[in-house]
Amino acid sequence: MLKIIHPYILKHQERFVAELFNLLRIPSISADKSYRQDVFRTADFVKQQLINAGADHVAIMPTAGYPVVYGEKLIDPTKPTVLVYGHYDVQPADPLNLWDSLPFEPQIRDGKIFARGACDDKGQMYMHIKALETLLQTQQLNCNIKFMIEGEEEIGSDNLEKFVQQNTDLLKADVILISDTGIISNDCPSITVGLRGLSYLEVEVTGPKRDLHSGLYGGAVANPINVLCTMIASLKNENNHITIPHFYDDVAELSAEERALMNEAPFVLEDYKKALDIEEVMGEEGYTTLERVAIRPTLDVNGIWGGYIGEGAKTVLPSKAYAKISMRLVPNQSSAKISKLFAAHFKSIAPKSVKVKVTPHHGGEPAVTPTDTKAYKAASKAFECTWGKTPIPMREGGSIPIVNLFERTLGIKTLLMGFGLDEDAIHSPNESFRVENYLKGIETIVQFYKYYSE
Amino acid sequence: MLKIIHPYILKHQERFVAELFNLLRIPSISADKSYRQDVFRTADFVKQQLINAGADHVAIMPTAGYPVVYGEKLIDPTKPTVLVYGHYDVQPADPLNLWDSLPFEPQIRDGKIFARGACDDKGQMYMHIKALETLLQTQQLNCNIKFMIEGEEEIGSDNLEKFVQQNTDLLKADVILISDTGIISNDCPSITVGLRGLSYLEVEVTGPKRDLHSGLYGGAVANPINVLCTMIASLKNENNHITIPHFYDDVAELSAEERALMNEAPFVLEDYKKALDIEEVMGEEGYTTLERVAIRPTLDVNGIWGGYIGEGAKTVLPSKAYAKISMRLVPNQSSAKISKLFAAHFKSIAPKSVKVKVTPHHGGEPAVTPTDTKAYKAASKAFECTWGKTPIPMREGGSIPIVNLFERTLGIKTLLMGFGLDEDAIHSPNESFRVENYLKGIETIVQFYKYYSE
Repeated sequence: MLKIIHPYILKHQERFVAELFNLLRIPSISADKSYRQDVFRTADFVKQQLINAGADHVAIMPTAGYPVVYGEKLIDPTKPTVLVYGHYDVQPADPLNLWDSLPFEPQIRDGKIFARGACDDKGQMYMHIKALETLLQTQQLNCNIKFMIEGEEEIGSDNLEKFVQQNTDLLKADVILISDTGIISNDCPSITVGLRGLSYLEVEVTGPKRDLHSGLYGGAVANPINVLCTMIASLKNENNHITIPHFYDDVAELSAEERALMNEAPFVLEDYKKALDIEEVMGEEGYTTLERVAIRPTLDVNGIWGGYIGEGAKTVLPSKAYAKISMRLVPNQSSAKISKLFAAHFKSIAPKSVKVKVTPHHGGEPAVTPTDTKAYKAASKAFECTWGKTPIPMREGGSIPIVNLFERTLGIKTLLMGFGLDEDAIHSPNESFRVENYLKGIETIVQFYKYYSE
Repeated sequence: MLKIIHPYILKHQERFVAELFNLLRIPSISADKSYRQDVFRTADFVKQQLINAGADHVAIMPTAGYPVVYGEKLIDPTKPTVLVYGHYDVQPADPLNLWDSLPFEPQIRDGKIFARGACDDKGQMYMHIKALETLLQTQQLNCNIKFMIEGEEEIGSDNLEKFVQQNTDLLKADVILISDTGIISNDCPSITVGLRGLSYLEVEVTGPKRDLHSGLYGGAVANPINVLCTMIASLKNENNHITIPHFYDDVAELSAEERALMNEAPFVLEDYKKALDIEEVMGEEGYTTLERVAIRPTLDVNGIWGGYIGEGAKTVLPSKAYAKISMRLVPNQSSAKISKLFAAHFKSIAPKSVKVKVTPHHGGEPAVTPTDTKAYKAASKAFECTWGKTPIPMREGGSIPIVNLFERTLGIKTLLMGFGLDEDAIHSPNESFRVENYLKGIETIVQFYKYYSE
């Protein structure tokens, strides 16, 4: 168990958790329009919490989609400025039947907060608001802080680029600080220094113009599900290499030394398989599991549907079949380019007996963050102080498109100081966040500011 | 437009349609347990209609599932006996949004009755009850008729074999008469003489034990959707030949003469493609479209689902993926054997990184019905009388497992005298049945009894 030593955090820990619970109770699912009012309500809640914590100029700033909540505490123009980014929207909660407690009624079990968004990103974002409160209440704040909390991260941050471009002065900072990643384990803290990008598309395959009786037409008319399966299967070869032409053209290859270093990270394949209840891992030939999730691009079907999916049997030859397909990208690959390559290839492999539609959902660029900066060093010291160990620099498989966007539009580097654990099951049923990681995260952020402003 | 010439049917046609509407209004979806009470209610309705038509000993006979409605009109033990089989259950109606009117609120548009079950099989089954009424009210009945109307045809008639075995005396007859098939067109009447069998299975592929974040695990852990697609794709080769070992072992091959005869049936490929809005047909190499749907076995995915299928995007690597897969079988293939071959093969092609479960749904044996019988000849004359043309003997692609079951358990041959049209869209949204085919069917059945008892 990690001990909290900061007296203010120790004293207020119960309230810090209770406030987070109130935030978690609002179902801010940005992907589903029926939660629209809840997403707006969450922005209001965040605004109020920033005000309560002591931030100035707190405002809900509209975009073409969900708004950005802005706030700041500027103490001295000669001191460095940190721009905190986070998001108040969450992933959908389905399948609901796999949750042990309701996703929007947070519960603590075994020292973990269970709720959708507990870790991604309400829990991790709220740590920053509580860190601000702690710094102000204990008169420890020694640099400038800005907050920019958006509501469309889980649907691709479509309106954020324009927002950032329109507010470059307001958002001026020396570093961007994001807690939306994890550490290897509580025994082995780490700082994320690389993120994969994302191309996400939806495909629709149409066979006959209406559903048919499979007995009367089966065998003579293309079944869009069978065709879709064949098309998807062909996207990888027997070595799990992606077959889209030019897909790997821009992939940054690591040197043998870099790969060796990466594979030194603590990782026990047997434990990994046991935790997932799988007999074998599966991935691109020639790469280790650590490499497959960090430095190699991937292609995954995130959802598929078509035909009769109710109880029992229906002998239908459906008119349409659909899939949501995403690709994780690595440095130098471009999301827009890969989406285009995918769409062109997917259409080209369709047999003439079907029609194919490809709709891009959203994308994000891969990013690598530097380790030789003042911010990285301050974060490293902060972890040492609170976790008692020097954190390992780690490349992670997920995507935070904003990292690339910030560098491109504001010219500012990002520090990814996350506190999630693998067990947190983000994007899954029973998402959780350890209470100790939440509180220890606040403490680490407080320490970060101390070292950063030294 | 087909003219009705029978005076009794002419006089009562509006009531005949109105009564069918009442039958169609009850949503007797046997595949979905939430409609359980409606299925039972439909059995009651059929019982009452048989009584109203003049049948004796009408009874609802329980089975382990939904009951069989029995009724009879025995006029003379020296006369031949016809056993009418039909079913009062229907297919599920989804996807509901593709219906132009509600599936259980029948409507007439363009001379067609639109409703789930309008053709399959409520409309076609009810014709027989109205034919009985007509025969009795006009003192024309000259043979014995028995009715056996079941409620589980759309879910595989699982309890019918036992029922038939337990009631062999009650069901004794010279021929079985079923209207659950179609004719080529109203310009070209036909009688079905061959039906494909069916094996229907559900498969479940499990990767990791819980849904994962595709960014953190994608590329390293088997995605059950990708794996399922690859497995399904491998079930057919590039010639659309099914790859399950021994799948074709028992297939009855037709002679060159038989195939030539079959291909003489009126069929215009361009019209077929236009009606379905497809650029190309797709099927097993070396066979024509008519052969593909009649004398060749098939494999179709009837439904597939897994991962996130809601609005927007979710970057999930799901734990499970599912598919409903059915195979149409031709004479000499055995449903049980094919289901076993499928299950063994499907498990054998699964990579070690997933777990596979295969659950058989239901099956039915292929059947060929004879054309040299008194019953076939009577049916042929009846069509000549009402349609003005000699019907063509035709092999059809669908399955009515009961045909094989009857032959096996009762030793009685079946006559398939159906009146559906291709446009009826059975098992699909906007199922319909032409009013003229419904009334003309009643008239043809009345004529059949006349010729059959001659």
